[in-house]
Amino acid sequence: WRLILCRKMAKSKFEYVRNFEVQDTCLGNCWVVVRVDGRNFHRFAEQHNFTKPNDVRALQLMNRCAQNVMEELDAICLAFGQSDEYSFVFHKKSNWYKRRASKFMTHVVSQFASSYVFYWKEYFPDVPILYPPGFDGRVVLYPSEQNLKDYLNWRQADCHINNLYNTTFWSLVHKGGLTPVQAQIRLKGTLAAEKNEILFSDFNINYNNEPLLYRKGSVLIWQKVNEVSKKRIKLPNEADEKEVEVSRWRNEIVELHCDIIGDQFWEEHPSILSDAC
Amino acid sequence: WRLILCRKMAKSKFEYVRNFEVQDTCLGNCWVVVRVDGRNFHRFAEQHNFTKPNDVRALQLMNRCAQNVMEELDAICLAFGQSDEYSFVFHKKSNWYKRRASKFMTHVVSQFASSYVFYWKEYFPDVPILYPPGFDGRVVLYPSEQNLKDYLNWRQADCHINNLYNTTFWSLVHKGGLTPVQAQIRLKGTLAAEKNEILFSDFNINYNNEPLLYRKGSVLIWQKVNEVSKKRIKLPNEADEKEVEVSRWRNEIVELHCDIIGDQFWEEHPSILSDAC
Amino acid sequence: WRLILCRKMAKSKFEYVRNFEVQDTCLGNCWVVVRVDGRNFHRFAEQHNFTKPNDVRALQLMNRCAQNVMEELDAICLAFGQSDEYSFVFHKKSNWYKRRASKFMTHVVSQFASSYVFYWKEYFPDVPILYPPGFDGRVVLYPSEQNLKDYLNWRQADCHINNLYNTTFWSLVHKGGLTPVQAQIRLKGTLAAEKNEILFSDFNINYNNEPLLYRKGSVLIWQKVNEVSKKRIKLPNEADEKEVEVSRWRNEIVELHCDIIGDQFWEEHPSILSDAC
Amino acid sequence: WRLILCRKMAKSKFEYVRNFEVQDTCLGNCWVVVRVDGRNFHRFAEQHNFTKPNDVRALQLMNRCAQNVMEELDAICLAFGQSDEYSFVFHKKSNWYKRRASKFMTHVVSQFASSYVFYWKEYFPDVPILYPPGFDGRVVLYPSEQNLKDYLNWRQADCHINNLYNTTFWSLVHKGGLTPVQAQIRLKGTLAAEKNEILFSDFNINYNNEPLLYRKGSVLIWQKVNEVSKKRIKLPNEADEKEVEVSRWRNEIVELHCDIIGDQFWEEHPSILSDAC
Repeated sequence: WRLILCRKMAKSKFEYVRNFEVQDTCLGNCWVVVRVDGRNFHRFAEQHNFTKPNDVRALQLMNRCAQNVMEELDAICLAFGQSDEYSFVFHKKSNWYKRRASKFMTHVVSQFASSYVFYWKEYFPDVPILYPPGFDGRVVLYPSEQNLKDYLNWRQADCHINNLYNTTFWSLVHKGGLTPVQAQIRLKGTLAAEKNEILFSDFNINYNNEPLLYRKGSVLIWQKVNEVSKKRIKLPNEADEKEVEVSRWRNEIVELHCDIIGDQFWEEHPSILSDAC
Repeated sequence: WRLILCRKMAKSKFEYVRNFEVQDTCLGNCWVVVRVDGRNFHRFAEQHNFTKPNDVRALQLMNRCAQNVMEELDAICLAFGQSDEYSFVFHKKSNWYKRRASKFMTHVVSQFASSYVFYWKEYFPDVPILYPPGFDGRVVLYPSEQNLKDYLNWRQADCHINNLYNTTFWSLVHKGGLTPVQAQIRLKGTLAAEKNEILFSDFNINYNNEPLLYRKGSVLIWQKVNEVSKKRIKLPNEADEKEVEVSRWRNEIVELHCDIIGDQFWEEHPSILSDAC
Repeated sequence: WRLILCRKMAKSKFEYVRNFEVQDTCLGNCWVVVRVDGRNFHRFAEQHNFTKPNDVRALQLMNRCAQNVMEELDAICLAFGQSDEYSFVFHKKSNWYKRRASKFMTHVVSQFASSYVFYWKEYFPDVPILYPPGFDGRVVLYPSEQNLKDYLNWRQADCHINNLYNTTFWSLVHKGGLTPVQAQIRLKGTLAAEKNEILFSDFNINYNNEPLLYRKGSVLIWQKVNEVSKKRIKLPNEADEKEVEVSRWRNEIVELHCDIIGDQFWEEHPSILSDAC
Repeated sequence: WRLILCRKMAKSKFEYVRNFEVQDTCLGNCWVVVRVDGRNFHRFAEQHNFTKPNDVRALQLMNRCAQNVMEELDAICLAFGQSDEYSFVFHKKSNWYKRRASKFMTHVVSQFASSYVFYWKEYFPDVPILYPPGFDGRVVLYPSEQNLKDYLNWRQADCHINNLYNTTFWSLVHKGGLTPVQAQIRLKGTLAAEKNEILFSDFNINYNNEPLLYRKGSVLIWQKVNEVSKKRIKLPNEADEKEVEVSRWRNEIVELHCDIIGDQFWEEHPSILSDAC
C-alpha cells in the first residue's frame, strides 16, 4: 500500500512538466487558415492506381472528408480543395479552443485523415485501401479580408496552372505517344497559351471544356436552404387529417466549382465572411 | 487565351501570402514529445460499446496505431500510451522536417487517426465503426533527460491513478449494485489505499493482480532482434544444395507493460535515449 | 602558432550555436505597437523629487526621448505618452528589420533609455541624475485600424482615469491635510463624477481646466511643414543681388495634447495611418 | 460630468486590446542568453574619435555598463563582452518575470543603454557625448551546459579573430603607411599564422603580448569576497574600548580577462553554473 501512496505524491511531483507546454494562441481578429496536404501522395496515388491527370473518385473523396471536417468542427466558413490539398478557413472572430494553433491544426488534420479511410470504400468500392495515409497540416493567419482572398486566389491559380500542365503532359503521353521525359522536355518553358494550343491542335481538346472540378477545384460553403416537407396534421376542430407543407431553414454544406478569383463569387455569397458565420 | 496569361501573372501576384507563414522551429537539443488525445472519446466509447473500465480491444488498437506511427515517421525513440492518449518521443538530435512543430504534430496525429480507422476491423471484427474519430495533438519540448523521464513518469502515474479509480468505480457499479452517482460519492476523497481496500474487501480483487496493460499502460521501443532463417544454398564445388542458417539483426518495435517510473527501465534499455537512435 | 590555428577552426566548431536563435517575425499587415514603461519609476520619482501628481519636467523629458526615438528609427507613424509610459506605432506595411519583434522592442527601448539620461539635464538642470534608469518594453500586434485606435483609446482613457484620481488624491493630501492613507480611504469606490465634485467643492478646482498635457497625454506625429527662408541670389542679367523667399516642405514631429478618442483626431490627420507613411 | 462617466466605461470597452498581447515565455530549464550589440557603433566610434583598433576607455565603459546590468537585474550568472557587444547569461532555473523573453531583452538593453550615457563622463571626461546611442538585443536559449559554453566559446573565438585582424590591419595603416584599401588587400585570405608573422616581422609586435582585455574580452562573474574591517567595541566587563577585526562574506562582481574556451575556467569557478546562483 505504501507504494501506491507514494505514487500519488509522485504524480504531483512530476506535474511540473506541464509548465513546459507553450501557449500558441493565434493573434485575434485574423482569419485562421489550416491547410492539409497529403503526405507522399505521389506514392499513394501510384499504389492505388489513381487515374492521371485527375482521378475523379479521389477528388470526390477529398471533398467528402472536407465536408466531414466542416460538420465536426466549429466556425469553418469555407473550405477550398484541389489535388491532394484542402484549406479550411476559420472565422477571424472565432474563439474556438481559445484560438490555440495546435488545436486548429491537429483537429482538422486528424478528422481529415480518419475520414479518408472511413469514406474510402464509398468512392473506391473495388479498390482496397492498402495502408493508412498520412497528412501534413499548417496554420497561417491573415489579418485582412483581402489577404485571405488572395490566399484562396493563390490556391485556385495554383490549381489552374498545375491542371493545365498535367492535362497537356498526360495527353502527350497517353495520346501523343511520348515518354514522360519527352513530354517534360516538350513542355519546358511553354506558356499557358502554348499548352492550350497543343491541347487544341494535337488532341482536339478545348481546355475550357474540361470539367470545372479539375480546372477550378472545389469550394465548400455553408448555405441556408429552405427545406419543404409534407406533414399530415389533425386540426382540433376538424374531423380529418390534412396534409400541410412545412418549411424550415437549415444550414447545409454546398459544393461549388466556380471562380473564386475576382469579386463575383464574394458578391454572390456575402454571408461567408460576415460576422454572423 | 488572355485570361489564362493573366492568371499566370495572377499567381505570382498572390504568392505574397506565403510570407504570412510563420517559422515554428522547435528549439534544438531538446526532446520533442507529441501527445495525441482522442477527441470526445467518451462519446465514441459509448457509441461503440467499449467495455468499462478497460476495453482490451480499444487499447490494443491504440497500440497498433502507435506502432504504425513509429514505423512511418522518423526518429521516434519511444511511445507511451494509456487510455485514449499516446505520447511519442522524438530524439533531441532529430532534425526531421527541420524540427518544425507543425510537422511533428500533424504527421503524428494524422497517421494515428487514419490508422485508427484502418486497423479498426482487426480489433473490432464484429463492431462496425460508426463515424471517423478525431484526435487532438500538441508538441512539448523537454531540455533535459530528467525532464523527459518526468514527463513519462507523469503520464504513467496518471494511468495508475485513473485506472485504480475506474476499476474501483466500475466494481461498485457492476458488482456492488451502486448507481454511478452513488459510486462517485463513495469514492470522493478516498486515498489510493482505501480504494485498494474496497477492491479487496468488497470484491475480492487484489489490484496488483490486475493486467499490467491496464495498470502500467504500454511502452513501445525499438529493439534489435536477431532473426535466424534457414536457407538452401548450393556451393560451387558440391553437387547438392545444403541448408544453412542465416542470421541478421533487424530493428523491431517491442511492446512492454512495465514500470518506467524509476531507474530500472532506463538501465535495462540504455539505447533508447542514446544518440545512436 | 598552432593554438591560433586551432582557434580559427574552433570558431566554426562553435558556430552551430547560432541555430538556437529563433525567428520572431511579426505577422505581416498588422500594426506593430511597442510600449515602453519605466521600471521602478515610483522609486525613481521619489529619489529625484518629482512633483506630484504631475511633474511637467519629467513629462517633457519623456516627450523629448520619444521624439528622439521617432527621429532615429524608421517607420514610426505615431507615438502616445502618459505618465512613465510611451507607445510607438510602426506602420503595418513596415518591413523594418524584417519585422523581427526583438528588433522593434530593443531598438525602441534602448534609444529611449539612453535619451532619458542624455536629455535629463535639459529638463532638470539643477537636479543631478542619481543612477541610470531601466525600462521595460513589449510588442503587440493589431490587425485592424480599429484595433489600433482602440489600443490608443485604452491608453488615453487610462491617462484620464489615473490623472483624475491622482489630482484628487494629492489635493486631499496637499491642500486638504489628509494623510495618504486617509485620502485613499476617502476615494475608495468613488466614481469620476464624485472626484470632480471633491475637486470643485473642496478645492475650487475645475478639472476640465487642468492642463491638457496632464489630462490627455502627448501625441507625437509627423507633419509636413512649409519652411520659408530668405535667400540672397544674384541673377545673371542683373548687377545687384536680390533677396527672394524660398519655401520647401519638410517632415517635422509635432506634439499634440488632444483627444484621440473619437473620430475627429483621425479625420483631421488622415495621413497618419495612410500607406504613404 | 457625463463625458467623464462615459470615459470610464470606455476604458473597459477598449480593454479587449490587451488580449492581443502574446505570451513569450522562454522554455524552462534552459540557459537564457541576452546579447546586446551597439547600433551603428561604427559611426558612433568615428564621431567620438575612438582609438583604433581598440579604445580602452570604450571597452571599460562597456564593462561598467555590464556591471550595472548585473547589479540591477536578478539571476545573471555571467556576462561576456568584447568590442561593442555584451552577452548576459541568466541561470536556467531563473523564473525572473515568469521567463518572458521580452522582459529579459528589454530590461537588459535599456539598463545597458542608460548606463552607457550615465557613466560616459567617467571614461571620457574630455569628450562630450554627442547623441544618445542605440543598442539592439536578442534572446537565445541553450538547453545544455555544453551548448551554453559553446556559445561563450563562439563569442570569445570571434573576439580573438577580429582582434588579430584589426591589430594587423591598423598596424599596416598606422605604422606601415598603407591605405586602408591596401591593408585590406594585403590581409585578404591570410591565416592567423600569417597575421602573427606580419605583426612580428614588420612591426616587432608579439601578438601574445597584446593586452588580455583586447585578446580575450571581459568576463564578469559574481564572487564571494571576505571583507575584513576593523571595529572598535567596548566589552561589558572591560573599561576600555578594543579594536577587533570583523569579517563578512559579500557577493561582488569580478572582471576577468582570461580564456573561457577550455575546461580550466569552469573548473576554477564551479559555482557559476551551479544551482545556488
